[in-house]
Amino acid sequence: MIVVMKTDATMVEISSVVKTLESMGYKPHPTRGAERTIIGVVDARQGADFSPLETAPGVEQVIPITKAYKLVSREFRPENTVVNVNGVAVGGDRFVVMAGPCAVENRDQVLTAARAVRDSGASILRGGAFKPRTSPYSFQGLGEEGLRILLAAKRETGLPVVTEVISPDLVPRVSEYADILQIGARNMQNYALLEAVGKIRKPVLLKRGMMSTVEELLMAAEYILSNGNQQVILCERGIRTFENATRNTLDISAVPVIKRNSHLPIIVDPSHAAGHTEFVIPLALAAVAAGADGLIVEVHPDPKTAWCDGVQSLSLDMFADMMDQVRSVAEAMGRSLHTVARTAP
Amino acid sequence: MIVVMKTDATMVEISSVVKTLESMGYKPHPTRGAERTIIGVVDARQGADFSPLETAPGVEQVIPITKAYKLVSREFRPENTVVNVNGVAVGGDRFVVMAGPCAVENRDQVLTAARAVRDSGASILRGGAFKPRTSPYSFQGLGEEGLRILLAAKRETGLPVVTEVISPDLVPRVSEYADILQIGARNMQNYALLEAVGKIRKPVLLKRGMMSTVEELLMAAEYILSNGNQQVILCERGIRTFENATRNTLDISAVPVIKRNSHLPIIVDPSHAAGHTEFVIPLALAAVAAGADGLIVEVHPDPKTAWCDGVQSLSLDMFADMMDQVRSVAEAMGRSLHTVARTAP
Amino acid sequence: MIVVMKTDATMVEISSVVKTLESMGYKPHPTRGAERTIIGVVDARQGADFSPLETAPGVEQVIPITKAYKLVSREFRPENTVVNVNGVAVGGDRFVVMAGPCAVENRDQVLTAARAVRDSGASILRGGAFKPRTSPYSFQGLGEEGLRILLAAKRETGLPVVTEVISPDLVPRVSEYADILQIGARNMQNYALLEAVGKIRKPVLLKRGMMSTVEELLMAAEYILSNGNQQVILCERGIRTFENATRNTLDISAVPVIKRNSHLPIIVDPSHAAGHTEFVIPLALAAVAAGADGLIVEVHPDPKTAWCDGVQSLSLDMFADMMDQVRSVAEAMGRSLHTVARTAP
Amino acid sequence: MIVVMKTDATMVEISSVVKTLESMGYKPHPTRGAERTIIGVVDARQGADFSPLETAPGVEQVIPITKAYKLVSREFRPENTVVNVNGVAVGGDRFVVMAGPCAVENRDQVLTAARAVRDSGASILRGGAFKPRTSPYSFQGLGEEGLRILLAAKRETGLPVVTEVISPDLVPRVSEYADILQIGARNMQNYALLEAVGKIRKPVLLKRGMMSTVEELLMAAEYILSNGNQQVILCERGIRTFENATRNTLDISAVPVIKRNSHLPIIVDPSHAAGHTEFVIPLALAAVAAGADGLIVEVHPDPKTAWCDGVQSLSLDMFADMMDQVRSVAEAMGRSLHTVARTAP
Repeated sequence: MIVVMKTDATMVEISSVVKTLESMGYKPHPTRGAERTIIGVVDARQGADFSPLETAPGVEQVIPITKAYKLVSREFRPENTVVNVNGVAVGGDRFVVMAGPCAVENRDQVLTAARAVRDSGASILRGGAFKPRTSPYSFQGLGEEGLRILLAAKRETGLPVVTEVISPDLVPRVSEYADILQIGARNMQNYALLEAVGKIRKPVLLKRGMMSTVEELLMAAEYILSNGNQQVILCERGIRTFENATRNTLDISAVPVIKRNSHLPIIVDPSHAAGHTEFVIPLALAAVAAGADGLIVEVHPDPKTAWCDGVQSLSLDMFADMMDQVRSVAEAMGRSLHTVARTAP
Repeated sequence: MIVVMKTDATMVEISSVVKTLESMGYKPHPTRGAERTIIGVVDARQGADFSPLETAPGVEQVIPITKAYKLVSREFRPENTVVNVNGVAVGGDRFVVMAGPCAVENRDQVLTAARAVRDSGASILRGGAFKPRTSPYSFQGLGEEGLRILLAAKRETGLPVVTEVISPDLVPRVSEYADILQIGARNMQNYALLEAVGKIRKPVLLKRGMMSTVEELLMAAEYILSNGNQQVILCERGIRTFENATRNTLDISAVPVIKRNSHLPIIVDPSHAAGHTEFVIPLALAAVAAGADGLIVEVHPDPKTAWCDGVQSLSLDMFADMMDQVRSVAEAMGRSLHTVARTAP
Repeated sequence: MIVVMKTDATMVEISSVVKTLESMGYKPHPTRGAERTIIGVVDARQGADFSPLETAPGVEQVIPITKAYKLVSREFRPENTVVNVNGVAVGGDRFVVMAGPCAVENRDQVLTAARAVRDSGASILRGGAFKPRTSPYSFQGLGEEGLRILLAAKRETGLPVVTEVISPDLVPRVSEYADILQIGARNMQNYALLEAVGKIRKPVLLKRGMMSTVEELLMAAEYILSNGNQQVILCERGIRTFENATRNTLDISAVPVIKRNSHLPIIVDPSHAAGHTEFVIPLALAAVAAGADGLIVEVHPDPKTAWCDGVQSLSLDMFADMMDQVRSVAEAMGRSLHTVARTAP
Repeated sequence: MIVVMKTDATMVEISSVVKTLESMGYKPHPTRGAERTIIGVVDARQGADFSPLETAPGVEQVIPITKAYKLVSREFRPENTVVNVNGVAVGGDRFVVMAGPCAVENRDQVLTAARAVRDSGASILRGGAFKPRTSPYSFQGLGEEGLRILLAAKRETGLPVVTEVISPDLVPRVSEYADILQIGARNMQNYALLEAVGKIRKPVLLKRGMMSTVEELLMAAEYILSNGNQQVILCERGIRTFENATRNTLDISAVPVIKRNSHLPIIVDPSHAAGHTEFVIPLALAAVAAGADGLIVEVHPDPKTAWCDGVQSLSLDMFADMMDQVRSVAEAMGRSLHTVARTAP
């Protein structure tokens, strides 16, 4: 951390900053120039908060040189975290595909989708029972009935289930059914919810807010880890920009940026980024090539009748086609696909 | 609503869309051209959801011509809503200033701030007891102790109090103390929270998310109104852009845009937009001139010791100076300042 | 400037950076900590380029603490620059309004507009003769014929003229007719053009690119000043963001940010920012209140027949109405309006 | 094109719009509802300009349903354009890599880079002789001396050359030396320059502006094609967003979006998007997987001494490593790499 003093800072102001830093347990090093003085602290604790200094008299700027997050950082833990989801390892050598419908609509729809995506090579089933919607007049999900349908599909196909939780009081109930609890993009900074999933011992899929930086995503994950839950999978799903040819702009660079700065697994959601079926496959392949650990993809047995996100949901055939290409690019990248054996009849 | 069919759409596909629309109770009007057909529904119900049509065979695009929100729209209610906050009318002829510290730190700090801002012309006291923070290691607020301090300050100064609520289960408790419940920018799309404050009968201050459109802000307000609570005050507080000379970019245009499209009052938070004390006053004056109904401003008796947001908090003297200029621009705009009489000793 | 070394930087790498800085004529101050070393140069020349150090072995980050621009900075020249445009002082005590049509269409249109805006209180006439257009199929302006019409209007009304120049080879020709040469937003980083207007001795109106930071705007102005022309007026006209309720998002904060960092005058274009007539006046008033030195506004005698930007052009009556309000807010801000006396018949 | 009339539009206003459209040669189809009327024109000419209607009395909105560009659209020309660069086919089956230094510094640097990138599999040499720089105090390029060095490297290695042209008057001179003329991101909407390169018969590499939409990029290309030059290669190089972990945000979706809407080849510049060496390779691989036709990459024999962009330039070894991976992902995508045979000694 470096404090840059104003050009007209007085000796008293400089001493006062030095003393404040010493009282925090640091050894500050002032460097005096003809025009201004800077004061460096080279061994600041990771995550330390120096913002109060910004308003001290004579201070122009406080420049952090260590990161604001700690437990999620690769410096804290150099080796990759592998999250074990009922036998499916996310973040390891094998590439993991999660797939299924946007919303659980009925038993048939989910079972049909689940069998098909497993047979094409997916290893985790996705499906929404509680849906956060922009409009209060849109379908809000089947709720607990949806969770029961997901559990039935899991039992039949052997696929673990990921589903969204939208408020702290729902965490216990959703945990009974789900193998991974998803925090949606709009809730990435819902701290009460982050704390609630930090206190359970189930894997969490944390989606990047469409308005959040990678650093803020890592800080949100830090909330979960600092509450005791280390099993966090990050997800890039597109950010909001001025471009509107796609629903969001997939920030593909987030994959290598996160790989460098954190030990947590990172997967990509090409469906919400693309917003149109025809762009989902190229984005999925780009994610594999950029080094992501997996994908989460919207698939529907009959997209044109889907209750939500039909316009970006792959049909079962398109998904099978995507998986062929994903397999081939993953192999070019030196990775194989994680698959789940068909359960005995 | 207009459905634009693809250039190669078949007659069967066109008929199918027409029938779907008829089954929804509309009278669709197809127009056939040499190249393509469009199907118009000119009397769609406000808030109706046509998104399933986007995936019907042969459909290229569905273009809405009515707005997605209803209860908050000026078409639904042409006259301005005036929210009555314990005698302070927000959205009426008089300009309302809410002011106080970012976080409640102690009784002295709040009382000093409250007296000073009232004497300078503020009519509502702000202060945070539950603080949503980017880092789990930052100060999270005094909680209920903070609420008690705010209540004491209200009793002494006569100023109604606005304070943030950060999760649905806290709504009853915060309602006991606060005159206005604030929904912070990060929670603008926390639908469980919006529903919770929609079910009480207290004014709500809804801050715009830093990367939410004005339309999304109005949809979030629609959640509150559709749950029964009509007393909503909107707040523009800056959006996230590529520019980083200020903490956020104050979207001053949001004021006239909201005035045109909604009957709800709109105030401006220049402190979070600016991020630096020296830019707060020009932004506050711009808000008055753009037609806002009020301001919410961070003020601290001693900004350099503030536990949060000190760098953007006005001192008591700067606030007094700001109020002189606000009063003068408000008068040029034909408005007077809402003030609260000193309570008898 | 501060060089932050990597935690694993060697002594040889540290010495090498120190020597490089010494060879550049600086006195570097290394501070060694248990984990890492930082090297400060506190008296770097303004505008000095340290980017080559970023790639030196062992370097993690190079942090500038002085600004990249020099001649345009308030540190270089503390007092405000006042640009004299044929007797109209831009940047002084009086508020200056430039107004007129988007494009010069014919003599009648320009003369009608010019007389009307002068009578309402404008002191400079705007009008485009060379038009940069997104589509090659849109009207590209009348060219030199347009310049002649503007000159005729100037002679009749006494209003100096501002008009756009779109390529270096047109600079001499446009200079013969115009009192201010405008560099449009799309050309803000057209360095060949900036150099060309830097070599003449006429005032330049430099519009901020819709994709440019305030710092880049100041760097673009630095190109003009460093080529010898000190008479530059800056213009904020809205930036591109995710919000699309308005054509662009007026960055009203740019006004106080520029006032703090530069001595150059700053005006606001509310027409391009708003994109719709109904939002122009509130934005114009916000600009006055935020401390701008003037406005540039699109006005057309008959907006519905305008060849370009009709949807955002004020009618003569709306402009007169705007000027009444501008006068009143300017007075509340302690400024009067610059006006031009009617020329004798 | 659809005109949506206001709810209170009069019959006279509706007729007037209908007549205006008829006078433009169209058959307008009005649809009257209880609340409002819409007027459709289903066979509008591509590129037709209906903006004047936006200001006609009674009109609320004009909604285009055909695209603003024509010659560059896939509807106009369904098959892919293949640009022939002295025997290197860009946009065909084979993947093309352009590589070389940011700026030409001297003969040795360019020749070393050229030989190495050819030997690793690049087929076109890049290098800047005229450099557009944000600061007037940065190195502006060697100019014509730089062009001569590039020509020498071409003669020795057999690699065609791509280099930037920054103003219309330089087009003839740069054309004498270069095989592809590059229009840089900041000049994407420099229409005088687009027209100048539209009038020559050499391939043009058009880089997307960092805050331009894909549609604006295609409109800029339309300027070149409409002036007669059909040999345009598009380039995605990252856009400006709120995220600053990378220099720009690579909009990887632009690749499939452009492939769908245009017949022109699209390549990706991972260097400017990443801004840091360590992220260049993942972005390059993502581009291959997303379906791009090629890459343009900054490579320097000694990045730490580079006069510009050293921090994002690959060393010769890193480039060789990248090419191995590019080859392998390209093959997984069913494409081979375009290479240039070593010239005889």
